[in-house]
Amino acid sequence: MTITDTTPALPNGVNVEALLGAREAFKGDTSLTKFTWRARNEWVNGTHSRTTIEDFYGVGGEQSHNAPQVHDADHPAIFAAEDNGSTPVEFVLHALAACLTGGVASVAANRGIKLNSVTSVIEGDMDLQGILGMDREVRNGYQGVRVSFEIDADATPEEIEGLVQQSQKRSAVDDILTGNVPVEIGVAAK
Amino acid sequence: MTITDTTPALPNGVNVEALLGAREAFKGDTSLTKFTWRARNEWVNGTHSRTTIEDFYGVGGEQSHNAPQVHDADHPAIFAAEDNGSTPVEFVLHALAACLTGGVASVAANRGIKLNSVTSVIEGDMDLQGILGMDREVRNGYQGVRVSFEIDADATPEEIEGLVQQSQKRSAVDDILTGNVPVEIGVAAK
Repeated sequence: MTITDTTPALPNGVNVEALLGAREAFKGDTSLTKFTWRARNEWVNGTHSRTTIEDFYGVGGEQSHNAPQVHDADHPAIFAAEDNGSTPVEFVLHALAACLTGGVASVAANRGIKLNSVTSVIEGDMDLQGILGMDREVRNGYQGVRVSFEIDADATPEEIEGLVQQSQKRSAVDDILTGNVPVEIGVAAK
Repeated sequence: MTITDTTPALPNGVNVEALLGAREAFKGDTSLTKFTWRARNEWVNGTHSRTTIEDFYGVGGEQSHNAPQVHDADHPAIFAAEDNGSTPVEFVLHALAACLTGGVASVAANRGIKLNSVTSVIEGDMDLQGILGMDREVRNGYQGVRVSFEIDADATPEEIEGLVQQSQKRSAVDDILTGNVPVEIGVAAK
């Protein structure tokens, strides 16, 4: 059974009706829109650590994903590490790509545009002089991030560009990157 | 064979000597410190997309991970999606946790502190009124992120706290979140 068989009424596989319905329901009680996403990380060895993502808070209570997801991160061999996973900064690129792409599919569904394929290459420039403490003027993180989309859809090039623009406008990860997020860190010695 | 057997000389499994050596080598040619990290994403269906991470540029040329890593992202069932993976914003929390934890291990190794265990819970607060376009005053991304470490190490509580402080000071992902990263998006219609 293909996805098309199971969800014949969903454009691009996105349940637009349900999303618009949720937005209406939230208007009556905006406490439901307050979410807390959560991740639990455990150090394995060297720069290798493992994160489990399962539960989160939202719509007024504790929620769970269908299944816990486990993600390994590490540094590459070129950093004298064991390369047991993607690097933390690569996961940031993945997050941005996935956020924008999910948005493109949702906006396209909402606008009645059928997508045939969406691919993207995301690159982030970083100068290691920052994290190695070699030059105080060089930042630790990305100096810039580029996203290149290639989209095949039943639409004009202008309409396709409009999908990406609207997706970026509503993207949580784009906002996290382009704006400041306060980070608070606590430590308990065991 | 345990990890301890294979790397008897590496404190916390971190090759501090190699890292310090690289820093010295980079001083002679800072073109080697310019990195470009890369991710390739493909839309699957609905808000489900898949990223492959394999190659990157650094130390003056194209590099590859030992193996390509594939990461699925999706929205949860509560958003009328199929929950085929962690959400993009959860991957941001994973990236921050992994970056800080790898840093803690590296700093501890450099300071001669033996780690026994490092765990953390990372939470990010988000108000869906942003991404749903319900309130222009509400941002799309995280309003704040909290990291709670629990660390068991052969060190005093002050020394343990110092590990986390130094890790945060040199963290690429902490910098990406707390500072602004320019994001440039291009679209080619196929």
